[in-house]
Amino acid sequence: MNDSWLNKVNWAADGLVPVVAQDTASGRVLTVAWMNREALAKTVSSGEVHYWSRSRKKLWHKGEESGHVQKVKSIRLDCDEDVLLIEVEQAGGIACHTGRESCFFQRFEDGKWVVTDPVLKDPKDIYRK
Amino acid sequence: MNDSWLNKVNWAADGLVPVVAQDTASGRVLTVAWMNREALAKTVSSGEVHYWSRSRKKLWHKGEESGHVQKVKSIRLDCDEDVLLIEVEQAGGIACHTGRESCFFQRFEDGKWVVTDPVLKDPKDIYRK
Repeated sequence: MNDSWLNKVNWAADGLVPVVAQDTASGRVLTVAWMNREALAKTVSSGEVHYWSRSRKKLWHKGEESGHVQKVKSIRLDCDEDVLLIEVEQAGGIACHTGRESCFFQRFEDGKWVVTDPVLKDPKDIYRK
Repeated sequence: MNDSWLNKVNWAADGLVPVVAQDTASGRVLTVAWMNREALAKTVSSGEVHYWSRSRKKLWHKGEESGHVQKVKSIRLDCDEDVLLIEVEQAGGIACHTGRESCFFQRFEDGKWVVTDPVLKDPKDIYRK
């Protein structure tokens, strides 16, 4: 497989694009993170989502510590070719480092942000070595 | 309503955050665009999605030309407070400027990007004045 498909993506000046991960079962948007070329290539070759961690400045195999990997079901590109949408099977049903299903657990209600989703597993139990 | 809820959002150095618009009926991710404070404030006050157009460098009332406005059903914020997820009712069932339901109409298959979604309305008929 040549990598012309990687060139089709309009990588930003910093080499990244935003990536939306959506749960294939529930349809819920789980998380938005970032990929560079290497992350997308790894995601395709391994079948598990790899992001680029902007805070740690390194490739990040999602779930490498928690076990909450994201299995790729489909990868989509938008009309401007600068955003990816990945349909995933979420291991453990937990995408968020807070132990919740989705990172989008705060909802705007009457002028404030309200936490609406339960913690499914204590992060202390997710991340202990 | 004071605007402390706007300060809760971790606006990037350029004043923007990415925004995922998801269709409340189909669950489909329709588009990813950007908001600044003003766009989010307008979105909340009007009940229709306003983005910040990075190419045109101005506030953009989604659907202002096409009529394909997005009515806000809910607004969510992620754990890092730097991405918004908005559940919308999509007027006309068309979010994309190409006349398709979703901007994510290209799917990765066997090493290439394949257009999988039909054009529902010719853009010439959407945008003529």
